[in-house]
Amino acid sequence: MQWTDVLASRALRMKASEIRELLKLLDQPDIISFAGGIPDPALLPVEKFARATAEALVDTAGLQYSVSEGYLPLRQWIRGRMEKLGIACADENILITSGSQQALDYLGKLLISPKDTALVSWPTYLGALGAFNAYEPVYDRLSLRGNRTVAQYRAAAEAAGGKVKFAYLSADFANPTGLTITREERERLIDLCDELNCAILEDGAYQQLRYNGEAVPPILALEIARKGDLEKCRTIYSGSFSKTLSPGLRVGWVVAAREVIERLVLLKQAADLHTATLNQIVVAKVAADDFDGHVAHLREVYGRRRDLMLEALAREMPEGVSWTKPEGGMFVWVTLPEGLDGAALLADALERDKVAFVPGRAFYADGAQGNMLRLSFSLHEKAATDEGIARIGRAIRRALAP
Amino acid sequence: MQWTDVLASRALRMKASEIRELLKLLDQPDIISFAGGIPDPALLPVEKFARATAEALVDTAGLQYSVSEGYLPLRQWIRGRMEKLGIACADENILITSGSQQALDYLGKLLISPKDTALVSWPTYLGALGAFNAYEPVYDRLSLRGNRTVAQYRAAAEAAGGKVKFAYLSADFANPTGLTITREERERLIDLCDELNCAILEDGAYQQLRYNGEAVPPILALEIARKGDLEKCRTIYSGSFSKTLSPGLRVGWVVAAREVIERLVLLKQAADLHTATLNQIVVAKVAADDFDGHVAHLREVYGRRRDLMLEALAREMPEGVSWTKPEGGMFVWVTLPEGLDGAALLADALERDKVAFVPGRAFYADGAQGNMLRLSFSLHEKAATDEGIARIGRAIRRALAP
Repeated sequence: MQWTDVLASRALRMKASEIRELLKLLDQPDIISFAGGIPDPALLPVEKFARATAEALVDTAGLQYSVSEGYLPLRQWIRGRMEKLGIACADENILITSGSQQALDYLGKLLISPKDTALVSWPTYLGALGAFNAYEPVYDRLSLRGNRTVAQYRAAAEAAGGKVKFAYLSADFANPTGLTITREERERLIDLCDELNCAILEDGAYQQLRYNGEAVPPILALEIARKGDLEKCRTIYSGSFSKTLSPGLRVGWVVAAREVIERLVLLKQAADLHTATLNQIVVAKVAADDFDGHVAHLREVYGRRRDLMLEALAREMPEGVSWTKPEGGMFVWVTLPEGLDGAALLADALERDKVAFVPGRAFYADGAQGNMLRLSFSLHEKAATDEGIARIGRAIRRALAP
Repeated sequence: MQWTDVLASRALRMKASEIRELLKLLDQPDIISFAGGIPDPALLPVEKFARATAEALVDTAGLQYSVSEGYLPLRQWIRGRMEKLGIACADENILITSGSQQALDYLGKLLISPKDTALVSWPTYLGALGAFNAYEPVYDRLSLRGNRTVAQYRAAAEAAGGKVKFAYLSADFANPTGLTITREERERLIDLCDELNCAILEDGAYQQLRYNGEAVPPILALEIARKGDLEKCRTIYSGSFSKTLSPGLRVGWVVAAREVIERLVLLKQAADLHTATLNQIVVAKVAADDFDGHVAHLREVYGRRRDLMLEALAREMPEGVSWTKPEGGMFVWVTLPEGLDGAALLADALERDKVAFVPGRAFYADGAQGNMLRLSFSLHEKAATDEGIARIGRAIRRALAP
């Protein structure tokens, strides 16, 4: 059987994610890893989950089929959280997904016909590029500095053979840069997408993890403030419990106008019926049990680890290396001197220094820029951070040596 | 925002499943429902699941990210089961999916480019049609009686603008007919697909639920017996724990040649990262705890309920109505006299007789045949079965009355 004879054209675009391949290295105990956007397992509320599952499994409801839109009490809890962020919505504006990765897949499926254009930041979350790739889009570079006109975006999309369908971005502490876009940039994005008549996909995966600075309202909140009603908005917001309660249970959500949610429900029905029932029940129970207190603790720990990483970088990086100073999330984005390549550096650093990170190229839709590294500070306290960053400094110095 | 301006062409093909809409009716206590292929909640091993989750949640492994291919001990357990069915395979031939519905979605995504042809039985599982629809195939009718030539299938696919990519079918106790295809038909299907050079998608969702008669080897087992090695086979087998242990946990699997599994792993990575970790761990624990004893009990109960339904049908159906006599699974497929319409009958029977079933039209890719009903016997013992089937008989008599 020659499988390439029967594959769909989209299947030929799929390739292994460098992050996922790298995760396999985390099992080696002598490697200090800054790869992977993984919550610290020690911070997952496992006792609460044990209690909640024991409570849930007094009957069979969690083991049985359930509705595609998701478990109502969980959607109600999410509605309450969204309202606090300025996103007034009804239960019918919320769909539960199996993690926010699935939301990206479904939104690609809903919106992209082959050759349509997706506007993305440069760099962008590589999992989003992976999810969208299956639907064969063309990528164009989203600029929030206003240096490209609507006509230019539109002409580029037409030249590529389709239309601009959406702009995708993570507004807060983006993966991989750690950067947050300003309120003014968010407003400009709404203007731009209003003119382009395209959707805005706002990825809120890290939104709750702010360590300092002032919160900026979600794009969807700003759009509702402007237009008066979620039903009139083009922003589709995705959220996740992966960075706060548990990544392994795969529970996330989408908030959008009713018409979008209704279509996503149909799509989910056809794709996997529903997100696991027990997982939704249990997450609803644990979320209802002092979510704010739990997240405050996460902020304290991760915020301290970010500080430790920034201090170590300041101490250990050779001249010519720069990095972002994120106000939240899990990542610092490092720019190496031009001419250095992150992937080559990783191969060398893994082998000789026993330290891991994610090379930056895969985060660019065109794969053009190679001198970047993504470092996650979520896992390590001072000793490992200091040692690991010193190892990276050593590897960079070696690479720079004439 | 005019959402239809930005939808992908595939999104316009999606429509609500009649079964899922009907499930909402199950909440009304005075309705006797034969709709939905739902395991009896009383037969789900909830104590075992409570014990298994308590054991699993002594640490955080179940709450953390895991690999896209699935939890190794679960894949190993599945490998053992597959070997008993004549499907010798390695762990690398197995992918864990979020239910076998997700397997159908992923296989459509892997294989179908728009206008490609999918061969399906007439009728076929409507969830498979729903999953495949998203990838915009054309359907052609699979005949196992040998009354269409390879050249005819090929010409039809070319005329439709693509190639035959696969034949999909449920070999045992198919949804909706309850029928099992013979060994000779399975062999003929392999011949046909060898000549067409297309894949075979074998849906084994009900395979374990045989109540009488002799087991027929899975198509994949017959193909391995013929070709000597799974790696040379074109059959992709999907299985599920939904009908045996729990539908709500959404755990299923795919067995296929390594090249197919590797591509599905990439696809799953991009689509939802992995099936929920805890669910896989817990299902592995419960499956390891006397699966055969548990399934033997299910067979006894469901087999008795099938007998009760067949007896009630023989007693209550007016002349001109016929039905299948399945050897397993959950469904009986009823043919009404020509001219009657299942959907009209349902509307009337729900309203006047308080009884529910699934009208058959949605199971036909061309929606052409309306005088069929699908009845599930999984939920009811004698009293409800007798009363419910009597009500359906009454409704049919009313519809037949001049």
